[in-house]
Amino acid sequence: MSDNGLAALHGVRVLDFTQFEAGPSCTEALAWHGAEVVKVENPIGGDPGRLSASEDGKTDAYYFLEFNANKKSITLDLKSERGLATVKELAKKADVMIENLAPGTIERLGLGYEEIKAINPGIIYTQIKGFAVGSPYEKFLSFDMIGQATGGTMSITGEADGMPLKPGPTLGDTGTGMLAAISILSALYKKKDTGEGQHIQLAMQDAMIQYCRTALSAQSATGKAAGRAGAGSVTGGNAPMGLYPCKPGGPNDYVYIYVTRANNSHWHRVLETIGRPDLIDDERYDTPKKRAAAKPEIDALLIPWTQARTKEEAMVALGEAKVPAGAVFDTMELRENPSLNERGIFQTVDHPTRGPDKIPVWPVKASGNHVPLKPAPLLGEHNEPVLTEWLGMSSSEVAELKASGVT
Amino acid sequence: MSDNGLAALHGVRVLDFTQFEAGPSCTEALAWHGAEVVKVENPIGGDPGRLSASEDGKTDAYYFLEFNANKKSITLDLKSERGLATVKELAKKADVMIENLAPGTIERLGLGYEEIKAINPGIIYTQIKGFAVGSPYEKFLSFDMIGQATGGTMSITGEADGMPLKPGPTLGDTGTGMLAAISILSALYKKKDTGEGQHIQLAMQDAMIQYCRTALSAQSATGKAAGRAGAGSVTGGNAPMGLYPCKPGGPNDYVYIYVTRANNSHWHRVLETIGRPDLIDDERYDTPKKRAAAKPEIDALLIPWTQARTKEEAMVALGEAKVPAGAVFDTMELRENPSLNERGIFQTVDHPTRGPDKIPVWPVKASGNHVPLKPAPLLGEHNEPVLTEWLGMSSSEVAELKASGVT
Repeated sequence: MSDNGLAALHGVRVLDFTQFEAGPSCTEALAWHGAEVVKVENPIGGDPGRLSASEDGKTDAYYFLEFNANKKSITLDLKSERGLATVKELAKKADVMIENLAPGTIERLGLGYEEIKAINPGIIYTQIKGFAVGSPYEKFLSFDMIGQATGGTMSITGEADGMPLKPGPTLGDTGTGMLAAISILSALYKKKDTGEGQHIQLAMQDAMIQYCRTALSAQSATGKAAGRAGAGSVTGGNAPMGLYPCKPGGPNDYVYIYVTRANNSHWHRVLETIGRPDLIDDERYDTPKKRAAAKPEIDALLIPWTQARTKEEAMVALGEAKVPAGAVFDTMELRENPSLNERGIFQTVDHPTRGPDKIPVWPVKASGNHVPLKPAPLLGEHNEPVLTEWLGMSSSEVAELKASGVT
Repeated sequence: MSDNGLAALHGVRVLDFTQFEAGPSCTEALAWHGAEVVKVENPIGGDPGRLSASEDGKTDAYYFLEFNANKKSITLDLKSERGLATVKELAKKADVMIENLAPGTIERLGLGYEEIKAINPGIIYTQIKGFAVGSPYEKFLSFDMIGQATGGTMSITGEADGMPLKPGPTLGDTGTGMLAAISILSALYKKKDTGEGQHIQLAMQDAMIQYCRTALSAQSATGKAAGRAGAGSVTGGNAPMGLYPCKPGGPNDYVYIYVTRANNSHWHRVLETIGRPDLIDDERYDTPKKRAAAKPEIDALLIPWTQARTKEEAMVALGEAKVPAGAVFDTMELRENPSLNERGIFQTVDHPTRGPDKIPVWPVKASGNHVPLKPAPLLGEHNEPVLTEWLGMSSSEVAELKASGVT
């Protein structure tokens, strides 16, 4: 039972036709756990995520580097007969094949589920699309924001009296990729006993609903569509709850304070912390319901206290008093945060063309998963090792494929 | 290699000490794949998620029903000697043990990692907290909104010149739970070969960074913290891109239109769709850069067209023309959507006290995962079957435990 020093997914082979983020975030989660993920890319440009977000249009974008760490890349012209034959040989050796190309593309290439299953019945064949097969929109194109519009996340984000807004996190992409990874891993677990493959399908619209479930439960209770609540909660009001301004007043100088609706314990701790224990027994505020109704007065009590402190000072004072509180950290504060760096949540890779690049890595600490961080691959960087190790090709065969324009 | 008709995680046993959402969303993802998830709950009230969001304070909340489907529940007084001894016997039989109690609680109960590892070296022992061990905030309490404040997602959500906002989706909770599930499943895969257990730890703050990576990549390119972009993208401007108003003008009557920055193809399709092919060669708009600079004029071209249509009419017209477009659906429109119901993304369970309740289920379609939907358990509903099946107790022993106030 002792740790064998290997990665959790040591030996798992993933043939990866994904692009941009929904698919790559999924296969990168597998790579973070040690699966051998081989990106199959067009020799001309590769995954469009490489250059579409690149400032100079030539150097692989930081975006690409973040979503493709620890993967390998091979190039194959899938429109050539030999390219197609080669990729089918690779598919025979894979545990997982995955794609998030536009609807119908993989099937038109002759690499649809039925074709691959016929040559590898144990394949876990995964497809991520904007809309599900069987949906009236199944042929429509999608990106993160289309998934977020049609899956409900925008409708519950924004000010109560304002327009819908897009959540800043790319939930339509990465949020979808994480769910796909869970079902792939469950399928791998079953395959280990049975050798059985699976057809796994997920749509971004459907995936978003998974993240709107608290709002959906509020709807079940009220019978009305969940609304928007600014910095509050879609499940209803509470006081204090929300963002309170801190010094020096910059765009993210706020502390979030949340006080439970279940009882008075947090509220009493807030009053102690802000130096107003005299209000603990004040009957104007002595139930969660009364406090919710007195939100303006309660905010007026708190704001002078928060404005006299930085967001981190306010967070620490409240947090030490066991009041749930959090400073609004921006992306630069996170990147430069000593604890996040010491604990390895951010790590620096040395990329061949970008040089040192600090990226956020898989944030879960798992004692039995040993995977050294590697940078995202250059286009076709692993043609030789993959074709030799997976297919037993000789170096001269690999060179000949290259000379023929297949790779 | 043929399908054995079982669930993907058939036979996996999870001993579940989680509460509210970050932990329960994780164990429910395992339950959706057929793991036997046994919630261990306090005989007095159980998981606080049961009643804290309940309208009447007595009936298990819709919130609880959504995050605990397909689980079992047992009650044990962990402060009694026999309760503690019983739970340790259960821990010996489990593959996974998981908790998201307040910092230090599980250790004070005598159920910390070292204790459990000593009696079950193969345990995959998982802890979800607001802040990581080693963080200066490690002892602080957290909820969804605190995770979202401190993990960056609020800083990138909102209008460009406005305050930070909370994304409506409960990313701090469910977004964290999904990452934990991925590492647990990877650990289960390894355990199958090695029998090896693991200690798995995840903090909500750290998990949020996983979803902010597109913003972080923009920051790497510009050297500045990512800002807020309303309904746009934190990675920068584009036109058309964003929400366009539709009839009849309700709070969610918008269609999202997104046109690629890579070339002119989507733009030309937009012009064809809105009946302005005359503008295809117009040199004011013939590059992505020129269009970004001419956003007001481009919006003025589109808005009369979108306002003359419902959001779904606009989405379908654009989608059929291969322009990425999506209507903003609210939570009620999703719940009542015929396709989402026919395809089983929403399903109705018959709950003993709530009656029929329509809930969103796991949205991934996996051909080899056969798991009939079951409602969330009542408190202690499975005391007898779990204690008899896991520990071999007799019915009279189970009854005696109950009579003694242990369960």
